[in-house]
This record gives sequence, structure tokens and C-alpha cells, in this order.
Amino acid sequence: MHTDDAIDSALGSGVFGLLDPVLAGSAAGVRPDGGAGIGGDAHVVAALVRAERGLLTAYAELGVLPRALAAEVAPGFRPDVRALASSALETGNPVVPLVEELRRCTEDPEAASWIHRGATSQDILDTALMLVAKDGIAAAVEDLAVAASDLVALALAHRDAPAAARTLGQHAVPITVGARIAGRLRAIVRARRTLLDVAATLPAQLGGAAGTQASFVELFGSELAARLPSAFAAATALAAPPAPWHTDRYPILDLAHAAGLAIAAMGTLATDVVTLTRPEIAEASVQRGGGSSTMPQKRNPVDAVLVRSAAMRAPALIGQLHNAAGLAGDERPDGAWHAEWPALQELLRLLVGAAARTRNLCAALTFDAERARANLALSDGLIVSERLAFVLKPRIGAARFAEVIDRTAAGTPLAELLRALPEAAEGDVDDLLDPARYTGRSGALVDEAVRAARDEGIR
Amino acid sequence: MHTDDAIDSALGSGVFGLLDPVLAGSAAGVRPDGGAGIGGDAHVVAALVRAERGLLTAYAELGVLPRALAAEVAPGFRPDVRALASSALETGNPVVPLVEELRRCTEDPEAASWIHRGATSQDILDTALMLVAKDGIAAAVEDLAVAASDLVALALAHRDAPAAARTLGQHAVPITVGARIAGRLRAIVRARRTLLDVAATLPAQLGGAAGTQASFVELFGSELAARLPSAFAAATALAAPPAPWHTDRYPILDLAHAAGLAIAAMGTLATDVVTLTRPEIAEASVQRGGGSSTMPQKRNPVDAVLVRSAAMRAPALIGQLHNAAGLAGDERPDGAWHAEWPALQELLRLLVGAAARTRNLCAALTFDAERARANLALSDGLIVSERLAFVLKPRIGAARFAEVIDRTAAGTPLAELLRALPEAAEGDVDDLLDPARYTGRSGALVDEAVRAARDEGIR
Amino acid sequence: MHTDDAIDSALGSGVFGLLDPVLAGSAAGVRPDGGAGIGGDAHVVAALVRAERGLLTAYAELGVLPRALAAEVAPGFRPDVRALASSALETGNPVVPLVEELRRCTEDPEAASWIHRGATSQDILDTALMLVAKDGIAAAVEDLAVAASDLVALALAHRDAPAAARTLGQHAVPITVGARIAGRLRAIVRARRTLLDVAATLPAQLGGAAGTQASFVELFGSELAARLPSAFAAATALAAPPAPWHTDRYPILDLAHAAGLAIAAMGTLATDVVTLTRPEIAEASVQRGGGSSTMPQKRNPVDAVLVRSAAMRAPALIGQLHNAAGLAGDERPDGAWHAEWPALQELLRLLVGAAARTRNLCAALTFDAERARANLALSDGLIVSERLAFVLKPRIGAARFAEVIDRTAAGTPLAELLRALPEAAEGDVDDLLDPARYTGRSGALVDEAVRAARDEGIR
Amino acid sequence: MHTDDAIDSALGSGVFGLLDPVLAGSAAGVRPDGGAGIGGDAHVVAALVRAERGLLTAYAELGVLPRALAAEVAPGFRPDVRALASSALETGNPVVPLVEELRRCTEDPEAASWIHRGATSQDILDTALMLVAKDGIAAAVEDLAVAASDLVALALAHRDAPAAARTLGQHAVPITVGARIAGRLRAIVRARRTLLDVAATLPAQLGGAAGTQASFVELFGSELAARLPSAFAAATALAAPPAPWHTDRYPILDLAHAAGLAIAAMGTLATDVVTLTRPEIAEASVQRGGGSSTMPQKRNPVDAVLVRSAAMRAPALIGQLHNAAGLAGDERPDGAWHAEWPALQELLRLLVGAAARTRNLCAALTFDAERARANLALSDGLIVSERLAFVLKPRIGAARFAEVIDRTAAGTPLAELLRALPEAAEGDVDDLLDPARYTGRSGALVDEAVRAARDEGIR
Repeated sequence: MHTDDAIDSALGSGVFGLLDPVLAGSAAGVRPDGGAGIGGDAHVVAALVRAERGLLTAYAELGVLPRALAAEVAPGFRPDVRALASSALETGNPVVPLVEELRRCTEDPEAASWIHRGATSQDILDTALMLVAKDGIAAAVEDLAVAASDLVALALAHRDAPAAARTLGQHAVPITVGARIAGRLRAIVRARRTLLDVAATLPAQLGGAAGTQASFVELFGSELAARLPSAFAAATALAAPPAPWHTDRYPILDLAHAAGLAIAAMGTLATDVVTLTRPEIAEASVQRGGGSSTMPQKRNPVDAVLVRSAAMRAPALIGQLHNAAGLAGDERPDGAWHAEWPALQELLRLLVGAAARTRNLCAALTFDAERARANLALSDGLIVSERLAFVLKPRIGAARFAEVIDRTAAGTPLAELLRALPEAAEGDVDDLLDPARYTGRSGALVDEAVRAARDEGIR
Repeated sequence: MHTDDAIDSALGSGVFGLLDPVLAGSAAGVRPDGGAGIGGDAHVVAALVRAERGLLTAYAELGVLPRALAAEVAPGFRPDVRALASSALETGNPVVPLVEELRRCTEDPEAASWIHRGATSQDILDTALMLVAKDGIAAAVEDLAVAASDLVALALAHRDAPAAARTLGQHAVPITVGARIAGRLRAIVRARRTLLDVAATLPAQLGGAAGTQASFVELFGSELAARLPSAFAAATALAAPPAPWHTDRYPILDLAHAAGLAIAAMGTLATDVVTLTRPEIAEASVQRGGGSSTMPQKRNPVDAVLVRSAAMRAPALIGQLHNAAGLAGDERPDGAWHAEWPALQELLRLLVGAAARTRNLCAALTFDAERARANLALSDGLIVSERLAFVLKPRIGAARFAEVIDRTAAGTPLAELLRALPEAAEGDVDDLLDPARYTGRSGALVDEAVRAARDEGIR
Repeated sequence: MHTDDAIDSALGSGVFGLLDPVLAGSAAGVRPDGGAGIGGDAHVVAALVRAERGLLTAYAELGVLPRALAAEVAPGFRPDVRALASSALETGNPVVPLVEELRRCTEDPEAASWIHRGATSQDILDTALMLVAKDGIAAAVEDLAVAASDLVALALAHRDAPAAARTLGQHAVPITVGARIAGRLRAIVRARRTLLDVAATLPAQLGGAAGTQASFVELFGSELAARLPSAFAAATALAAPPAPWHTDRYPILDLAHAAGLAIAAMGTLATDVVTLTRPEIAEASVQRGGGSSTMPQKRNPVDAVLVRSAAMRAPALIGQLHNAAGLAGDERPDGAWHAEWPALQELLRLLVGAAARTRNLCAALTFDAERARANLALSDGLIVSERLAFVLKPRIGAARFAEVIDRTAAGTPLAELLRALPEAAEGDVDDLLDPARYTGRSGALVDEAVRAARDEGIR
Repeated sequence: MHTDDAIDSALGSGVFGLLDPVLAGSAAGVRPDGGAGIGGDAHVVAALVRAERGLLTAYAELGVLPRALAAEVAPGFRPDVRALASSALETGNPVVPLVEELRRCTEDPEAASWIHRGATSQDILDTALMLVAKDGIAAAVEDLAVAASDLVALALAHRDAPAAARTLGQHAVPITVGARIAGRLRAIVRARRTLLDVAATLPAQLGGAAGTQASFVELFGSELAARLPSAFAAATALAAPPAPWHTDRYPILDLAHAAGLAIAAMGTLATDVVTLTRPEIAEASVQRGGGSSTMPQKRNPVDAVLVRSAAMRAPALIGQLHNAAGLAGDERPDGAWHAEWPALQELLRLLVGAAARTRNLCAALTFDAERARANLALSDGLIVSERLAFVLKPRIGAARFAEVIDRTAAGTPLAELLRALPEAAEGDVDDLLDPARYTGRSGALVDEAVRAARDEGIR
């Protein structure tokens, strides 16, 4: 490899999000303050340690391990994240070397002997990933609440501002700026609720080598073994598992669903923003955007573009998690489990990063009701042709109506054509052609979406 | 194209599942009796017609359309499915030509004028897809219940039969045949419950051209327009939509999640069956299997192989649905909606086909407890080495224990080595090495899974 | 299922493209003339028959089967496509029932005994899929050539028409209408070439039950067995396989790559069209578009939207094919092979359908150079700010240059600001601000792309 | 977040492969020696710097920049990788802050002014990714050559050792151990060749802000601008681009194809190894395997399991790259480009990691011909029933043949049944039932695969 010697080789193979700017600045990303990132390897290691300590806590709760002894386990433990990643070479997962390290850092041999007692690597790793997921969801949920709050304000501010609804890129009928925002608000509020609900169900894992809990029965008897998973779940603040889920990966698929719902909700908002900030459309703008290396005037809707990129990336990860879940044979599968980890890690980071970007986006987002109204006029009134059909066909028949529409294509203004119809009284025409009079339940939809958001505690 | 003239060209471009044998014989597949398949185009057309008629019913319920007039709409309507598929050429969706056809088949012009009144293509198509999904789920749920019932019997029959648990393909510790089955039972029962729950929430769609319901407000006023979606939902036996969901595709993602959970649950069972029916392992067998074109002795576990193939196909479809959902911009998107239909159609058919195959599989599945016990002996007792470590390390120390294990690699039988240990009394050794004494909570896990199944009405 | 009795149940589970309008009207789709569709099940059956007959031809070529006897095999054979799909129930693939049917339709028992002699189902099915693929590529390649020809004309017609280049949705620098088209032309011409190249390498398959050719050695001896695959390839007009590829699926991945390249090339063109036909942008239009069920004025860019939907669907299929290829263990895998067929079938149909839609699109596509120039003016000259920076920074320094740009944000016209600069002579300013003077090698890029197209025989 | 304070927060959000053990120990992974990993962010930054310096070299080659001045640019530059990742916040890509940093580290203002002159971020980033890809391919190709060399030796050593060929998990017909290996060898040799071929075509990128090269024409005139891309390609040792490929992402798809072919080839080998090392089958073993945290006796085929996990992950990434390529509209797309980077980065790292694991695997892989022969006997001779049918049906008719096969199911040994047939002479029977006499062209297939490997320089 022609790597420039001048590059700090101590960074080894680290991936910090250089090519993943959707993470930048988020709780999942590198930050100027160097804070540990959610979903990063350091966070995973911390969660693994929490899981191992949680097992000791559970033992103490159940009365089989003196609390004082538990306190002797690796006090002030500082794992070397990169060394652990490297050690996974031999064992295929990071728990084995972590346990060795924890034991090495525990002076009391009796205390050391309790570390990881009865557990299998998967108990610790699955539990740790649930802890990481909860942290990730907590960060995302917070950002989504702030974003939703901004959307509430925007929807209310533009509740009745008419705009062109677009289908397949073309003007269809009028909508209001507020109703469009309300749709996105509704999706984000629902996704946030789903994330919270799923987070509350994420189970701890404690089944031993093959999910039979045989080690725990051997060590402590059947009755205590039966109570242990709940105690472990309590110690790690996770839900108690109905049974070991070593090759029954529903918690992973539930997570994938919730994260996917949220990222899709953010993706559609971002897609609208990218469209509406195009200079020819200009119905929305973002106050802050990315600069260009060569074009001093550019203000790119970077947050929206990056959220869209997240919406293009999450589906592959979700698919990969389903693939791994469906091939999880035996009592631990021959590849599917290992295929799951990096996909889950990346999906969680993507969720956190996209939520932070969406929060930024909503904070910077403004709408231009004047411009929206101006764009509405582009079709010279044809945007309300659906309404005209309802009103005029009964009066003048379908054939004459079609003729009127055809003549607009030849250049005659629609208003003029309508005024020339004896059946359409003069006063009617202005009303008929006013897009603001054909926005249906747009206002009510805003009110209902805002109410639903308020019910979820969004201000 | 060099198509042989002898092939019936009337079949046009039809795809009947020739290359999709997971569907064969299922409610989604071609059957010898020629029954219409779930999720096939004929079923979709029927659902489109149900949606259009549902709208008329809703109007009648709300009192704006005389019931007698509704009855005049296309009595005995028999759409030409292939002609509709062909007509989508101009419009990009099949609703426009269907509506034309319905009107053509309605003699009373007043009745004809009520067809599709106020609705947009998406209202009808989205609603129809929810109807198709409900039918698909109903078929799958029925098959999964029968499969689960067979698994209950199998799990109870082999509740205490010891077997080797396998991780990464290698023997790990003992389990019971029953506990392994119980894990798969649990997943299938849960997936069935999720399918039922999601089916109950699938919403009708009724928003008009851009989700504002403007057409309905124009035609019937705001108050009636607000009540119309619920009436339409009632008429089609779907859930009332909180709001139009034209570009807020959560029902699609909820469906994808539920179908994916179910297919993954079936996939892991099938993966186990393919492994356990390998002739060298032979712990399971299927009474019925596929023949070979050349090898008269072969009995392939075809159902299991096809279910596994479904588990490899569903993830891509689920990913595609998330991709479409996240790019659903504007009021109807510029490609994402159209990308969703065929993926949803195939996923639903895959669900139905896989459930039928799983039902077949479970009906034909038997386990050989003797063979399972024989395989357990392959490691000459080392399969309980985890237990030995718990028992012996405290007595003889870790170093001597490792030495014992190492010497088995040199060929000395483990029992002999253990009996040579002064610390291990003779009687102990037989017990210690008995895999049936180290199955942990396997029996209890069976009982709990069966109880959970019974709570769901599985017999 | 609540299927309306009125629906023709004879259609069984057929999927005709009702929900797949990208196929409609293409060689893969239902057509008003009822022509057999490429990639449809009837086409696959025809290809299976061609493969079986090809084996007989190969035997005849090698002199082991009298030609007269080969002619006795199932003359005028008309398989029942739906019955075959249904029969796959027992065997997991359609070859076994097809062979039985061929034998049933052959009166001479000696002739019947030669049908499928020595072959395995996979030999016939893999070979047939290669035949289907070649037909699909041939159709796509023809449509892409016509599309490319239209793009050549468009690129040349607008070679020098300035337009705004857009990055992240925002105006960046000028380009020409022609250069934009030339980029898409280049991609389509390259993809067409790749399709042709891959088609020429698609191999026949002939390995017997496990790819050892043991049956052929047994029947005809080693020497003739070694020559048989080439003879079979010649008889089916495919490439001779270097070795059996039962679980070495490179031909499938090569196909996936070529189809994916082509669909992506079409997808980017379609994406541009959807953007450029937005009424606010209006730099392009399509003469023919899809109507709406409710909005009489709408002309949707349906072809482009459907091609975009194909570009969102193909990736999942390509991923699925890679997944199947990587898990193709043993001598025939336990699920991966079956997972491959429907994905390959759909991908080929998507290729054919997208190419037909792209041909339609290009035939109907026009560009509006005036409008493109008008949009260029939206940034009041800032679109050439990169150029201004090159020219002015050396004269007035970076600080003063930044100040000029900043003042445009406050509303002063850029031309006025520039004319006020003593360093910028009056005459300079018009030239400096003319976007047509900053299109770089746009013209040359058009010429080069057209030359490359002509080298490929595009007129 | 409940991150333990004790975790080194300086690691920020870094992902080092803790959950990606397929990378561990490879050129892409963390290594005990701390070496910079291929595809890691440090490597990408180094490649970005190489691209920026390559542009200066190109200018010097073309005579527009004095070489002495180029040497003044950021001598001994040591970028802060994490700071760059963090800075991407504002701009959406890492090039803008890198350029600023390079300028800051250049004392001579004239030299500083040449940095990035005329280039756009995408020129540098795309070029850098091609450099990273070439390095990744070089590492993978080296490992694949060593692996192929081991497979050559194994195939030759077991050229004629009979074994059971397995289809759908069941015994089908005999094969040889060598022929099975030869199939995997062939796939790996082909994939290596494809990687080398693609690496030789990877193009530099140099189109300026919108791919028109306008900046270069402005700065240096048309003629020199036309020559610049080739000079830049030469300076970076990449292929000269036929045209800018900003939104024509064929190089990415070519990379995806080559990497996918290689990972699939490795995946099928690994799948075979996981099957064949199951203790009940035991035809293969790996000398080195992963340990378990709780079961001292376990030797897991970790390399094979991890390669399989790579084969389950690559498809999603490949699909994601196709998705991004097909949506790459405008002159730089509104999300698709950003969605491409992390997928490409991960795919390249996966390629490198899987190749290293495959090399390890092949070095440790042995086959047990005795055990393979013993497994062959499991079907009591029925594994050659295809041959028996060829030989006996003509002698005894199909009905009596079927009867013989049926009676084996009732327990009578096949040899006994055959000897009881008057038509089967005694001597015949042993030969007929010997699987080693029914391996077809297995030996020749080994020889041909080895020859093809030797032609590629594999020893």
C-alpha cells in the first residue's frame, strides 16, 4: 500500500465517519470536543462491560455473590478498544479477550472467578447491543422531538398558505404549505413513538452456550436459573426475555423496523426539502448550508442531502438483518450472527446521525408562501381543473368541458375561456380559479397532526 | 425472440410461478384445480373492484347515493386482467382503465357518474393492496397455526430427548430435541400474532388527488368529507386511516416487518431441517420429499429448501420497500410508489407460499431421538466439558483440567481419564458424562413455549 | 379469500404485470396483440424445450443418435405452462414434469429414451435461463440503440445551448444542454456494449447430477463426454462452458452486472427528465405522457417515472443474486439456487421493460434551450462566480472579491457591482457574466460521446 | 448515554472492526503492530492527499507549474483524520477542510494558490477512492493467489479420492474431493483475474465543478484542459478517463461486480468448509480454529464462518451501490453520491478482510479421504443408483429396476439384491457399486482447473 508515511498510523483501520458525513456532529459522530460517539466501538465496549457488570449485579441481587466481592471486579477498568478489535482474530468475537482482560485487572482470584460465570459470549454481546440500541434510540428520539416541534410551528404558521401539490413531478391540485408539513410531522411523531415502544421491549439475553441455561442450572440450580434472566434484565435496565433468543432474532428485526420507519420519515421530509429549495421552485430554504470548494455563491441543502443519503443506505442494512435472521440455524449460526453485527451497528449510527441532521434541518427551514402562490399560477389556473370538472361538467357537459381545457393548450387564458361561458357567471370565475378555495381539508389535517404531536408531548 | 411457435402465446408475459416453486400448491400458487391465487393479478383486480364498490357503499351509508343506484353499477362485472395490465401502458397504473371499463359496463349514466367519484387512482390502488395483504395474511396465519400445532406435538414428544446443540457447525453442549423445536415454535407463534395485529391495523386510503380530500369537500362539504374515510374503511373492512398516507408509507413498512418476521421464523426452522436431514446427521427426516430427474433414490427436503429460498428472497423485497418509502417525496413520488407495488406483491405471495410449504414441512417432519443421542457421543463426552470444568476445576485446578482435555486429543478416552482422577469418584463419572444430565432448562423451555402457543389458540 | 367470483379464475395465480407497468407494452410485457413476453413463463418453457432439443442435436452431431430418431421426439409439442408450474410442487423445479411430458408426447420408445439422457435438471434449467437472458438482452440492446440514436440527435441539436449545471439541487456552473445529454448517451452506449459482450459469453451448462459429467462418461466414454458440452453449446448457440458451473454462478453475476449497468444508465437519464420536466424548471418536455383519473390537465412523464422505479428495483434483485451466489455450497445448494431464479427472471424482464420505456422516452423528449437560458439567469450571474474568482481574485484580492459576492446577497445586481470595479473594464463584464462563455469542453464532450456512439454503430 | 467514563473517549466515534472480525488481522483490520488499515479513514485521507499532489504533478508535467513550487506544498503534511471527519459537518465532504489544511501548511502563498486549482471536491474524492480501491484489490489479489496455491495442492493431492456429492443436502452421486476443490479454485482464480482487470481500468476523475472542465479551460485554455485528465491519471497511476464520470458511476459498479464475484467465490468455499467440518461429516478440518469462552473443547471454523458472514454482507452493499448509481441525477446528485461512499468503503474492506481470512482458511485446511469414502457408504450403494439405472434398465427393464431400489428401502442390502439378479454377473456387482468407478471427468476437471490456475501464475 502506498500509504503516505506522514499519516498517523496509530489510527490503524479506524473508520471515523470521514466518508459518512451524515454522522458528523451528531451523537454518533466525531465531534470537535472528541466525545465518545454512540454506536462507535468505544461505546460498544462500554456496553459489553456494562453487561458483564450487570451479570455480577444480578448474582448479587439473587444472593449468590457477596456485593463486596463484586466490587472487587476490575475497578477503574479501561479497556483498549483497538487491542480488543485486534484480538477478535482468534475467537471471532470481542467478548473472549474482554473477559480475559477483566480477569487480568481483578486482583482477587475469587472475584475474578465470578466474571462471566456461566455466560456465553452471545449473552454478553447481544445484551450489549441492546444497550447500545437503547442509547442510540434515546439520542434519536430527543432530536426527533426537537425537529417535530419545529415542524409544528412551521405547519401552523403556513396552515392556510396555498401551494401546488405535485405528483410525478407535475402540478396536480392545490394543497397548503402547512398540510404538506403536517404529513411529514405525522410520520416523524409516529416513528418516534415506535422507537420508544421498541426500546422499552428490547430484551437482555442470558441463555448460556446454547440457550438452555444449563450452566446456570449446574451452578445455581433450576429455580435460581429460572429467575436469573429477569434479574440480569433488571440490572441492565432491559426487558426480561421470554426465552433465550440466540437464533430467534426478533429483537433485531423490531429494531430494524423502528429505525427504518424513522429514517424513511426523515427521508421523505428531506426529499421535499431538496425539491422545494431548487432555485427554480424556491418555496423553501435552509438558512445554513454547505459551501463549495470552488463556487463561492453556493449554499447546498447539505443536511437534507445527507438525510436522503441515509434513506438510501438504511434499506440495504435492514435487508441484511432480515437475511441474517432467516438463516440463523442451529443454536448459533455459521455466519448469519456475525453478518448481523456490523449492519446493526451501522443502522443505529445512521439513525442517530440522520436524526441529528433532521433536527438541524428543521431548525434552519423556512417556507416562502409568496413563492408557493406564484408557482401555483404557473398552470394558468389548470391546477384547479379537477374542481372545474366537478362544477362545470354538470352544467356544460363533458364534451364542451374538454374543449375548454384543450383550448388553453392553444394559448387562450383559462379565465377568459370561462368568462365566455354563459353558464359560468362572472363572479363565479374568480372563485372557481382561486387555488386557495380548493385545498380541501388541508387546514384540518394540520390541526389534527399538531394535536397528535401534542399528545406525544411535542411542544 | 426464438420462442417456439408451439408455446401458447395467449399466455402472454404471464408469470405463473414456474420459476417460483415455493408458491406451487399454495394459496398463492397455481393449483391443479386452477383456483385463483392470492396476490396474483386476478386477485389484485378483484380487490380493485372491491375498493371501487366500497366507495359506492360508503356513499350509500352516508346517504348521498341511493342504494338502488349503487346496485346499477357494473352488475356481473368480469374484467379482463390481461387487457388491464396492457392498458397501464398509457397511464402508469391499472385504475384508470378499470374505471373506464366499469363505466362502460354500467348502463345507467347517473350510476356510472358515481363510479370513482372524487377518488384518485392511489386511493383505490392502496386500498386494494391492503385488501390483498389481508387475504394473504389470513391464508398464511391459517397455515402457520397448523404448522405450530405440529411443532407443539413434536416438541412435547421429544421434550427430554438429548441432542447435540451446534454452534458454528460444531457440537457445543447438550440440548434436547424438544427445546430446539420449542425455539422455532415460539418464533412462529410470535410471527403469527404480529401478522394478525398488523392485519387489524391496515388502513383504507382516501385522500383524493393529493391527500387533501379537496374533491370530497367540493362534492359533499367538509363535514361529510371528514366522515367519508371511516365509512370507506368500514365498507372495505379495513381500519380507518388517521390521515391520507399517500407518501407516508408506514402501512407498507409494517407489512414488510410482519411478513419478514414470519419468513425469518420459517427460514430458521427450514435451515435446521436441511441440516438435520443430512444423511450423516440424520436426526430429522421428512416423510415426503422431491424426486430427482436422474437419481431414483433421492428424497430431497424440498419444502425446507424452498422455505430457505424464501428467506433469502424476502430481505431484498423488504429493503426495496424501505427504499421506496424513504424516497416518497412530493404528494406522489416520481418513481418510488411504482417501485413499491411489485415488491409488495411478491413479498405477500412469498409469505403465503412459504407458510404453505412450512405447513407441509411440519406435517411431514419426524425426529429420531436415537440418532440424536448417537451423534451426541461423537465427541467422546467432550460435549459436556463445560460442565466438567464447573465441577472439576474447583477440585483439581485449571491446569490439571486442561491437561485432561488435552490428553483426550491424544486418543485416551475421557471416561478413562476421569476415572483415573482420585478426586472424581467412580459413580460421579457416569453421571458427569451423561449429556442428558446437562440440558439445563430445556424441558421448562418446551413447556413455556407450548403454553405460549396454547395462549394463542394453537392446539 | 373474498375473491369476486366474477374474476376469471382460470388465470390462477398469474402475474401479468398489472402492478408492473414498466413492462407494459414492452417485449417483456402483455401487449394488445397478446404476443408472448420475454422472460414470461411461456418463454422460459420454450427455452427449456430448446435446451432439451439442443441436447438431442448435440448427440446427433456427435454421431451417437440418428438424426431421424431425434426428429421423432415430441413433434409439435405444446406444453401447458400452468400445469408445469403446478407440477413443480413435488420436485422443486419444472424440468422433471417437462421431461415426463416430452416423453409422453413421443411415440417411439427408443426416441423417448434419448430425451434428457444423462442430463440433470440443472443442466437444462441453467441453459434455458441463459437462452432467456440472450433473448432479453437482444430486445434491450435493440431498444437502447434506438434510444441512443435519439440522444445523439438531441445532443448535437443542443451542443452549445447553455444551461445551469445542478449539484445537490442547486445551480453550480454553466453546462450545455448537449453536454448533459452526452453524458447519458455515453452511459447507455457503454451499457449496451457490456450487454452485448456478456451475451456472447453466456455458457451452456452440462455437468450431470453433480457437475462431474459421470453420466455422460458412463454412456459414451470419456472422450465423447469431454466434447459434449461444446456440442451442446453449439446446438443452443451459447458459449462453451470451461467447466460445469452448478455452484460457481459467475454467469449470473456477469448478467446482473450488465443489466444493472444498463438500468442505472437509464435511471440517471430518467431522473434528469423528471427533474427537467418539472413545471418550474421546464427545460425538457415529453410529448406523450400519462393521464390522470381525476385531473384532466395533467401530462405525467410516465416513462421516466417508470424507468426510475426500475432503477429502484434492480438493486435489490442484483443483491439477491449475489447473496445466492455466495451461499451456493455443496454440489447443488440448499436454497440458494432456488432463490436465484425468480430474481434473475424479474431482473431480465425489468431490463427489457426499462429499455422499451427508455426508447419511448427518448422518442418523445425535447429540450427548450430558451428556458434553459432563462433559468441560468436566476442567480443573477452568480452561476459564473467560479470564473469570476479566477479572473478577479488576482486583480482585486480575495477579500474584495468576497465583499462583492456578499453584496449581491443584499440585492445589488452583480453586473452593477462589477462595473463599479475600476479593475474590470466595461467590455469585460458582459463577457465575464455570459454563461455561454464558461461551458468549458462541453462542445467537445458532445462530439466525443457522439463519436463513441457512432463507433458502436449508433446512427 | 451511559457510556462508562473509563472508556477512552479520545477514540470518539471510531469503528475499528470490533464488531467486524472478518477484518481482524487483515490488511484492512486493526493489527497488533498498529499498521494503517486499507480502506480505513487514515488510508482514505492519504489517498486524498495523493490525489491533490497528483494534480500538482500533472500541472508540472504539462509545464504550467514549476516543479520547485510544487515541492513547496505542505511538506511533511500530517493531517488530523478525526478533525477532518468532524469538519465534514459544514461541507458534506472531507475535501474542503483538507484543502484548507493543506493551504495552511504551505508557507509560500504562490504555491498555496496552486493547491486544488480548478478542481472540484468530487475530482479529488473520486480519484482517491479509486486509489484506495487499487490498494485494496492489490492486497486481496495477493491473498487470493496464496489461497489458490493451497487449493491447487489440495486438489491434486485428492484428485481421485471419491466422496459423496451433495445436492439439497442429500447424497446425489459420487464426486472426488479434488473435483470439489477444483470448482472452488476455478472461481477464485477467475475472480482474481477480474479484480486485476478492473483495477487496471479504474479511472481518475477530473471534470471540475460540473464535469465540463470549464475551470481548466479558463485557467489554461482548451488544448491543455483536454490533456490534463490524462496527465492527472498518469500522476496517480490510474487509467485516463474517457470523460468525467460525476454521475456516470460505471467504475463503481465495475468495482462492485469484481468484489462481489470474489466474495461469492470465497463464500462458496467457506460454505463447503463449514459443512464438511461438521463433526458428523468430518471430511475436512481446519488446523486452527476459534476457541470458546466457555467450552474448552471447541474448535470453531472461525475463518470459514467469517467469510460466510462476508458473503451475506456484500450483496446489500452491492445493491446499495447500484441504487446510488441509478439515482445519480443532475450534475451531482442530491443524496446518491453520499450514499455511495460508505458502501464502497465497507465493500473494499470486506474484500480485503475476506481474502485474508480465505488465505488463512486454505492454509489450515485439510481433507480426510478415508472419512469421505466412509460417508459414501452411508447410502449402501444407492449413491450410484444413477449408474445402476443406466446399466440395468436396458437389461431388466424399468419396472424390475424400480422394484430393486424399493426393496433396499425395506432393508435388504443392495449388493445382495443385485447378486440375486441373473442378469448381473457376480464380478459386475462390485465394480458397479464402487463409487470410485463413477466419478466421471472429476480427474480431468482437476487437471483443467489447475492448468487454468497455472496460466494465471498460481504456483
